Amino acid sequence: MGLTDDAALIDVPVGQQLVVTMDGMVSGVHFLADDPPDLVARKLLRVNLSDLAAMGATPLAYTLCAAFCREVTDSWIAAFASGLATDQAAFGISLIGGDTVSTPGPGMFTLTAMGTLATGKALCRNGAQEGDDIYASGTIGDGAVGLLVLKEGDELIALSPEDRRFLAGRYRLPKPRLALGKALVGVASAALDVSDGLAADLGHLCNMSALGARIEIEKVPVSAACRHAIALSQLAASSVLGGGDDYELLFTAPPERAAEVLERAKGVGTPVAVIGKMVAGRGVIIVDASGSAVPIESTGYQHF
Amino acid sequence: MGLTDDAALIDVPVGQQLVVTMDGMVSGVHFLADDPPDLVARKLLRVNLSDLAAMGATPLAYTLCAAFCREVTDSWIAAFASGLATDQAAFGISLIGGDTVSTPGPGMFTLTAMGTLATGKALCRNGAQEGDDIYASGTIGDGAVGLLVLKEGDELIALSPEDRRFLAGRYRLPKPRLALGKALVGVASAALDVSDGLAADLGHLCNMSALGARIEIEKVPVSAACRHAIALSQLAASSVLGGGDDYELLFTAPPERAAEVLERAKGVGTPVAVIGKMVAGRGVIIVDASGSAVPIESTGYQHF
Repeated sequence: MGLTDDAALIDVPVGQQLVVTMDGMVSGVHFLADDPPDLVARKLLRVNLSDLAAMGATPLAYTLCAAFCREVTDSWIAAFASGLATDQAAFGISLIGGDTVSTPGPGMFTLTAMGTLATGKALCRNGAQEGDDIYASGTIGDGAVGLLVLKEGDELIALSPEDRRFLAGRYRLPKPRLALGKALVGVASAALDVSDGLAADLGHLCNMSALGARIEIEKVPVSAACRHAIALSQLAASSVLGGGDDYELLFTAPPERAAEVLERAKGVGTPVAVIGKMVAGRGVIIVDASGSAVPIESTGYQHF
Repeated sequence: MGLTDDAALIDVPVGQQLVVTMDGMVSGVHFLADDPPDLVARKLLRVNLSDLAAMGATPLAYTLCAAFCREVTDSWIAAFASGLATDQAAFGISLIGGDTVSTPGPGMFTLTAMGTLATGKALCRNGAQEGDDIYASGTIGDGAVGLLVLKEGDELIALSPEDRRFLAGRYRLPKPRLALGKALVGVASAALDVSDGLAADLGHLCNMSALGARIEIEKVPVSAACRHAIALSQLAASSVLGGGDDYELLFTAPPERAAEVLERAKGVGTPVAVIGKMVAGRGVIIVDASGSAVPIESTGYQHF
């Protein structure tokens, strides 16, 4: 690792703030023990980068504490390290320190990611105003269905290999929306990433902004593969939206800035869709095309 | 915790660098499962602050990832949190983010501590020069003997209650040498903290500085309680010096700056002692009063 001192030094440019986030993943809880180790490492890094994206930050560096289980093999560790190397190159971020320990329990990996942004420009959760449009990036629900595919839910056996690969990939290797996050600085009024599920995370944004949200389920962007899975299975569309692990951005902006939002998102090549509006009151209401409330089955991410 | 966004924001003053360190502790490996939870939390924070001290930094903030075991109780968590609160106040550092997860394995706690120091002024491991004096702060060996006391080594039964309390306290609640680290900026040529054991850690400093070290065992500061334990037990003084968990500072400085080193250490109320010299070659040699080499039994920290 080339890490030689007790601690690492970071230079933060004048006029910029440091953004810090930390997430841990436990084997058997946040990833499957037989998941490919390179993908475990890459997901860990990407989950943290998604938090930086939600603030509008540019990734800078990270530290890692790896607690390897007693049974870990050299080849597992090598594959884990190669996954980190791949995504370090992809996202322009480097490992600057950390700790390696042994645990008698399941492996656990904790990562602290640091990024920078112009002072005072961070996207926060508490800035939404009544009447603001609510946007989602990419597609919602793939992460939850991807996990079902990996767990081989019987009803999903008929899904095409392409759909299975797409959904599993969305679960295992989320795409942090870094370019979109940066592009939204100065135009979005609030933002966060979808890790616990659309309804749960939007609930956080509502609470912080002291408002409610009204989502039109027909407007929530859903991938073709996810639609196929819904058609084949017992899954209600609403329960898919209650699942987590999408790592898309949810954000708000005043209606008069809609053209600017769409232009900026297009500029970075990330699809975004208006899915509802911030309203007076509290909590998240999801309505169907007729305006009737749709129950969301899960209001937070249920680990397997 | 009052933590409301995906990530936390930190302002680093102009002319300063950020210093980042990360250490994890696993129940049953780095602490005993029945250790008081407030002391577990405080040791975790202090171990990280010791790394900041070894760089000469001033603590600023930290993030924590707590993986609680399934059997954890509310009162355990409350005591853990109160330990953090105590030391946050003591060291002027605040929790700015992190993650809380559940693990089917032993509890694990990972902390990332951040500090600041003037740009370019960090104490590093690679600056020692041939002929530099080697200093140790406080007393060495208490951590390893304190662990033995807590594990109730039979031969230590005769130790006085005061000695037992002192040694156990040194193991459970190390004192990060923050004031000393800051005072040494500009005078010490290299520094690090003793976490793995005097010989092992000094070995790191030697490797990084491409030199060897010659330590006179008679000059290594040892507490009265540790001397009593050595007298009562089968412990060789050399094996005590091979044990870890002291969290004292080891540092080097040119002989002509000895008076300045002692004055600065005195200014912050931390005892320091010259224990040897940096020499040509590689590796750590420990000699007794007659100049004969003393073997060190452990060259790295052995977890229980």
